[in-house]
Amino acid sequence: MTDTRSFISDPKELRAQIRAGRFTGPTAGHGGEALQANLVILPGDDARDFLMFCQANPRPCPLLAVGEPGNPTLPTLGDIDLRTDLPRYCLWRDGALVAEPADIADLWREDMVSFALGCSFSFEDALTRAGIPVRHQDAGRNVPMYRTNMPTRPAGRFSGPVVVSMRPMPAADAIEAIAICQRFPLAHGMPVHLGDPAQIGITDIDRPDYGDAPDIRPGDIPVFWACGVTPQAAIVAARPALAITHAPGHMLVTDVPSSHAARRLTGVQPL
Amino acid sequence: MTDTRSFISDPKELRAQIRAGRFTGPTAGHGGEALQANLVILPGDDARDFLMFCQANPRPCPLLAVGEPGNPTLPTLGDIDLRTDLPRYCLWRDGALVAEPADIADLWREDMVSFALGCSFSFEDALTRAGIPVRHQDAGRNVPMYRTNMPTRPAGRFSGPVVVSMRPMPAADAIEAIAICQRFPLAHGMPVHLGDPAQIGITDIDRPDYGDAPDIRPGDIPVFWACGVTPQAAIVAARPALAITHAPGHMLVTDVPSSHAARRLTGVQPL
Repeated sequence: MTDTRSFISDPKELRAQIRAGRFTGPTAGHGGEALQANLVILPGDDARDFLMFCQANPRPCPLLAVGEPGNPTLPTLGDIDLRTDLPRYCLWRDGALVAEPADIADLWREDMVSFALGCSFSFEDALTRAGIPVRHQDAGRNVPMYRTNMPTRPAGRFSGPVVVSMRPMPAADAIEAIAICQRFPLAHGMPVHLGDPAQIGITDIDRPDYGDAPDIRPGDIPVFWACGVTPQAAIVAARPALAITHAPGHMLVTDVPSSHAARRLTGVQPL
Repeated sequence: MTDTRSFISDPKELRAQIRAGRFTGPTAGHGGEALQANLVILPGDDARDFLMFCQANPRPCPLLAVGEPGNPTLPTLGDIDLRTDLPRYCLWRDGALVAEPADIADLWREDMVSFALGCSFSFEDALTRAGIPVRHQDAGRNVPMYRTNMPTRPAGRFSGPVVVSMRPMPAADAIEAIAICQRFPLAHGMPVHLGDPAQIGITDIDRPDYGDAPDIRPGDIPVFWACGVTPQAAIVAARPALAITHAPGHMLVTDVPSSHAARRLTGVQPL
């Protein structure tokens, strides 16, 4: 079991410590019930194309908030300065990872647009509360993720396959999980597939393309959700001159309750 | 395709024709958008036990309305006289079918209690509207139904296995179907199983215990819903001295819109 006493449950306090350089690690378990998000920052035309890509592919790319060009805040999600309030960033040039800085104040430009995308934490919390097993968490592993033969809808320079995460569970739990996830369009929403992995182009369920090997118990069926790796993979493949993202596991922690992933936060139609 | 011009779409007009003896056939397709229901009538202690059985097993036995003892009306469902307003009834004595009368006015007693139970018509309509295939309808067959190894929760003299209906469909449609059926707790609600039939004690999917053989297409997975045959089988097995039900396909047609199966109509907690 995790030692909850070492966690910083107040998201404002957590971001203050991150900003001051006193918190540098992964955010899982911190911030109490606060919604955590994937961050993508792109300049100019790349930002416009990426916005269209997210709107065309809401299951893998659920938009929580989009910043104004040049403005490093996302006021609907909290009192956030995106240049300093994440513990670690990834800096990409021409699709290659070139640095993992602790802040991006020196990199900020007036044509940069920020995108906060929902992640699976919100619905995994809801599944756990409903008594549905989340096997990779129970095993202390990362969720298994797979490239599929399902294409995203291309937009501008962004395209590529849908990447899915997989959670194995008994069929009766899968039915309940679908009902629960219907309420979380901003956390990838309902699964996109269940049952036979070959139907979506997965040839070996035990060898995921990302994350750790699955823990599939007798009687489990695999249930597949669209995954936030989808936009990351599309960005890397599109080789934009410049892109900034959160570093894996080092998320944007908002002031919004995690349960609000069940609602629309922006004017963008999430599903 | 069915010739819709021959259907009576007004439920009040349909019941008037039934009451006058001018309409004697199955009710499928008639009554427009009106909710149709299974009918069970039991006297005295058997009624009390059956009410408890329905409350304990809301997925197979979704209670739309329960009559007052001796009162053959169900005012929350419309201006209905249960003694005359169904085209055909089944009369059971000691668990054996002894007659199929066109009305039950002579059989009515002051200790009789009526139960209207939701049926699958409501959610099948919703699936069709969502573009989800309902294969047995497309094939002009009855839905396949199976006895399972899942027990109902016993109440008084009533017990027995859950009987399920099965609709095969692609996995992505199954996910949408689950989300849709979550809104229809009074039409059996969400599926109770999907995938491997053996997990719920079904040994040969091509040989149902009731209804017609399934039409399973390549890529389909079987999806199983609790079925209104469950209470019928429990009543026959319990061998009450007297029971009256609707005759198969000759349903109670109400004045309530079919979409209201997405709501609670009674004080009884349906799920």
